[in-house]
Amino acid sequence: MKIFPTLFLITFLSFSTSYASVNDFCVADLKAPDTPSGYHCKPLANITSDDFVFHGFVAGDTKNSFNAALSSAFVTDFPGLNGLGISAARLDIAEGGSIPMHTHPGATELLIMVQGEITAGFFTTSAVFSKTLKPGDLMVFPQGMLHFQVNSGKGQATAFLAFSSANPGAQLLDLLLFSNNLSSEIVAQTTFLDFAQVKKLKARFGGRG
Amino acid sequence: MKIFPTLFLITFLSFSTSYASVNDFCVADLKAPDTPSGYHCKPLANITSDDFVFHGFVAGDTKNSFNAALSSAFVTDFPGLNGLGISAARLDIAEGGSIPMHTHPGATELLIMVQGEITAGFFTTSAVFSKTLKPGDLMVFPQGMLHFQVNSGKGQATAFLAFSSANPGAQLLDLLLFSNNLSSEIVAQTTFLDFAQVKKLKARFGGRG
Amino acid sequence: MKIFPTLFLITFLSFSTSYASVNDFCVADLKAPDTPSGYHCKPLANITSDDFVFHGFVAGDTKNSFNAALSSAFVTDFPGLNGLGISAARLDIAEGGSIPMHTHPGATELLIMVQGEITAGFFTTSAVFSKTLKPGDLMVFPQGMLHFQVNSGKGQATAFLAFSSANPGAQLLDLLLFSNNLSSEIVAQTTFLDFAQVKKLKARFGGRG
Amino acid sequence: MKIFPTLFLITFLSFSTSYASVNDFCVADLKAPDTPSGYHCKPLANITSDDFVFHGFVAGDTKNSFNAALSSAFVTDFPGLNGLGISAARLDIAEGGSIPMHTHPGATELLIMVQGEITAGFFTTSAVFSKTLKPGDLMVFPQGMLHFQVNSGKGQATAFLAFSSANPGAQLLDLLLFSNNLSSEIVAQTTFLDFAQVKKLKARFGGRG
Amino acid sequence: MKIFPTLFLITFLSFSTSYASVNDFCVADLKAPDTPSGYHCKPLANITSDDFVFHGFVAGDTKNSFNAALSSAFVTDFPGLNGLGISAARLDIAEGGSIPMHTHPGATELLIMVQGEITAGFFTTSAVFSKTLKPGDLMVFPQGMLHFQVNSGKGQATAFLAFSSANPGAQLLDLLLFSNNLSSEIVAQTTFLDFAQVKKLKARFGGRG
Amino acid sequence: MKIFPTLFLITFLSFSTSYASVNDFCVADLKAPDTPSGYHCKPLANITSDDFVFHGFVAGDTKNSFNAALSSAFVTDFPGLNGLGISAARLDIAEGGSIPMHTHPGATELLIMVQGEITAGFFTTSAVFSKTLKPGDLMVFPQGMLHFQVNSGKGQATAFLAFSSANPGAQLLDLLLFSNNLSSEIVAQTTFLDFAQVKKLKARFGGRG
Repeated sequence: MKIFPTLFLITFLSFSTSYASVNDFCVADLKAPDTPSGYHCKPLANITSDDFVFHGFVAGDTKNSFNAALSSAFVTDFPGLNGLGISAARLDIAEGGSIPMHTHPGATELLIMVQGEITAGFFTTSAVFSKTLKPGDLMVFPQGMLHFQVNSGKGQATAFLAFSSANPGAQLLDLLLFSNNLSSEIVAQTTFLDFAQVKKLKARFGGRG
Repeated sequence: MKIFPTLFLITFLSFSTSYASVNDFCVADLKAPDTPSGYHCKPLANITSDDFVFHGFVAGDTKNSFNAALSSAFVTDFPGLNGLGISAARLDIAEGGSIPMHTHPGATELLIMVQGEITAGFFTTSAVFSKTLKPGDLMVFPQGMLHFQVNSGKGQATAFLAFSSANPGAQLLDLLLFSNNLSSEIVAQTTFLDFAQVKKLKARFGGRG
Repeated sequence: MKIFPTLFLITFLSFSTSYASVNDFCVADLKAPDTPSGYHCKPLANITSDDFVFHGFVAGDTKNSFNAALSSAFVTDFPGLNGLGISAARLDIAEGGSIPMHTHPGATELLIMVQGEITAGFFTTSAVFSKTLKPGDLMVFPQGMLHFQVNSGKGQATAFLAFSSANPGAQLLDLLLFSNNLSSEIVAQTTFLDFAQVKKLKARFGGRG
Repeated sequence: MKIFPTLFLITFLSFSTSYASVNDFCVADLKAPDTPSGYHCKPLANITSDDFVFHGFVAGDTKNSFNAALSSAFVTDFPGLNGLGISAARLDIAEGGSIPMHTHPGATELLIMVQGEITAGFFTTSAVFSKTLKPGDLMVFPQGMLHFQVNSGKGQATAFLAFSSANPGAQLLDLLLFSNNLSSEIVAQTTFLDFAQVKKLKARFGGRG
Repeated sequence: MKIFPTLFLITFLSFSTSYASVNDFCVADLKAPDTPSGYHCKPLANITSDDFVFHGFVAGDTKNSFNAALSSAFVTDFPGLNGLGISAARLDIAEGGSIPMHTHPGATELLIMVQGEITAGFFTTSAVFSKTLKPGDLMVFPQGMLHFQVNSGKGQATAFLAFSSANPGAQLLDLLLFSNNLSSEIVAQTTFLDFAQVKKLKARFGGRG
Repeated sequence: MKIFPTLFLITFLSFSTSYASVNDFCVADLKAPDTPSGYHCKPLANITSDDFVFHGFVAGDTKNSFNAALSSAFVTDFPGLNGLGISAARLDIAEGGSIPMHTHPGATELLIMVQGEITAGFFTTSAVFSKTLKPGDLMVFPQGMLHFQVNSGKGQATAFLAFSSANPGAQLLDLLLFSNNLSSEIVAQTTFLDFAQVKKLKARFGGRG
């Protein structure tokens, strides 16, 4: 049996190489501008195994007002996810804590229970779908739906979250409504909250007006 | 010049006809089950011009608590939109009224001002983008973002809305939070609203718990 | 109740902020090159409410050969639409005027009648779907289909158009066929128009050959 | 080394089998209704190698008014293409013949020259892009663009066409405009053709009005 | 302040309800046929919180030839994922075990290390990207790429996998090549494996020919 | 009848022109970085008919170890395909030759037989779908599936391939497994190949370890 011709190998390698830089993956160059489909691709020659690995997916510090922490591995943290439509986060909630009401516009969230007990739910205008979850349970929150997670058990609760987007973000309802300068009158009118309640939450979340 | 052969015509017509029933359009059969991409297609033989026209895109009755009305032309109202990624609604807001905080999960909204004056805005956690709009103005609310519209002028205000989905729905924040039976304790904990405020709005919007 | 820790707020804000610049919206930087998914995103720090609002969606001048005017609000006019899959135009047709045959490749058009009377239709090889429309009527023209609008009433007719693309363009049949230098022989052969007809329309629409 | 456990094999096989019926491929059941994403999937148990093969991709009869024939292998001819976003056709044009002006809404066409010489082109409102093609040449017609192919050489010309849709159809301009009953006045007004030209082509292509 | 009118509430509720059954989510009816976009939607009236929760995401039995187990939560296991573009699996590998070479056509895999040590990698024709992973590490395997996971540490290794598809499947290389009746000559010719090696693996994996 | 006003023409032309540069087509600027949706668009002013035509789609040299040649017309060869979701290749296999096992991640392949005889097939874990093909036959290989083509007849075999991606690449199994430095122990463990077989193929395909 003969040795495989080098030339042939090079031909196949080079055409696959050019492809790889376009579609097989597209590691984000976070210093370049982004586009509606994601960031520019880092040149293939600069890519190593490290681009596809993320370290530090560990518990965040839950000593805050929420008694909860969210550690994200989104494309801005983990450039290898660029263009691949997936990302993750780790959720830690101390006893009595919660992740308050929020949405991920355009991303579905899949929660994998790891430790403790979480009561979670999402809302539609006709129903609320909520459950108490234990290790071995999964729950899905369809894209764009308002949802929450509460530690309803003893001790710390931990869950891993997967998202159907490389950059799902998190729109926390209180930060949306109460951390800016939109007039409290408009907020009260369009939420049906009492004016005093709006003012109180604006004071808490750093808003004015 | 000779007459065009009938046979040839039929060949072209028949292959185009079968295509038309698949991809050119797919008028919804609302009595059949739906799928993630939309409803089943109505048979081509039953389709007429009327399937592509919607009547009654007129002002709704604004004599209600919101002093506002939304008349929708979504796929469930207008089956010709099935699979086409677009729909519309008409918004009428009486003086002093508003469309309260809401989202359209997965649909961008484009507002076309027709009459009067509307102050509208949408929220991100880092900023609120709001403007006062008059006839001749458009405003875009990117998909999934929490937003509101208030009649900030004299007399009735009217706008037409276009959506980047055949079925954008509307998730009204107060109906999400206060029209169901989720315990008021969880709602208060995950919204930072006072417990009394939650109970008051549950009473108003028909929720219990 | 304690004040919310600033540090916590900043953490949430910063991770949401980076997201916002990627996926929540992507206001076009029209001076940068574009891509198959749209233009580069303008830096988040430079974005204001004005990026999401368009002014001048008003009647165009209908004193031209078509007796009609189209005022567009596409991404090149309104950069906030970039990546959002929606845009709009205003159509004004003087009495006796029309918007001639055209297509929007890859965009569905949804027409909202505002004033007067328009007879509109689109073509398949097996049928023409046409209707006479009045205020309160909508009509949908599925993507890529050849269609027209004629003022069939008294006085001016006005409609608003929404498109399922940020940049639907308009391919007017006469400009396609008769404003270029392709040989009249080829145009005649592939349209079955008489040669003299082709020459006459080439003269009118600025073509040669 | 031990024999691989049958149980293990079955476990992997069964979960892959269920997947295969959903996403790996979805052979069309053409007797069931279709949806915006394509036809229902034929049950996996009934699928054989024959579902992925099409026979008869051969020259059609060019003895017709166009002196041309198009043999399609679209999803309605070849159910294995369902949901896969690709299809093909064979084009044969006798000397002096042509494929008249047409569009494929939503599908790009890639032409592979096999025999003879074809002059082909597509139109934008600002330019016509046309070329004379010989065996060994490819030409791409971006989605939705009006285009034509003319045999500009000696003897028969043959090309293979690939489309970026399982069901691209073909909207022939003359059949769109002249094979139906839309009034000739409207056709003339919206095409700028002479009324007599419209009547002449309506007579030829089977239209009335 | 008056009580909110019931009629108004019903209007909003009903139009949101119909939407919910179409786009907000589409729980799979696994007894109905599927389509290229997923299964038919279960009627909204039959949907409960249980549709969005999966139980039994626990370690599988690793006493098999691979010394490994994969427990899947794909749409066929967890109907609430239908149409949402996400799913999960749990991976347990006993000491010395591995998940052999495989691909997920059309789905990216995101691996979250939970326990032990795994050496994993994926292949391109120009490079292999592999790493040894410990708890707190993530690794991404871009869609369609051939990859493997080996327990390279002491004791059991566990990882959670998220996929960018509701039904990613798993195409195991040995089952593809050696569990069917394709002739060993063709397998040897197209893999460059020795004929005896092909026969040996066919015997092991249940193939003939 | 008057001459068409130049001003009007310019208005239509200019708004269509800007569109054309964005969505009608987007010829790749291969010197600029790429993105998940493809390369930057070449400026419209620099585009000519030549951007939409590819020359040299001819037989490659089959005098190599595979006795086969693949000539690609992917976006990196033919920039006009950028963003259009289609590409092509020409396959020539000398008598006795074959295209070895490979996948195209994310692209479906449609094979058009031109000359000779090819036996081709693709694999699922539950079945192999293979057929012997002659001129006039088509075969489809769904996206991401492992497949092969063997010249099973007399003389040279030729086929044209169309792909549902502008850049499908080709992941050849032997190059993936045996041309890199991953340890032979890991390759043997995760493929169930004998260690000696792995070493032999590594020597042949240029790998080490």
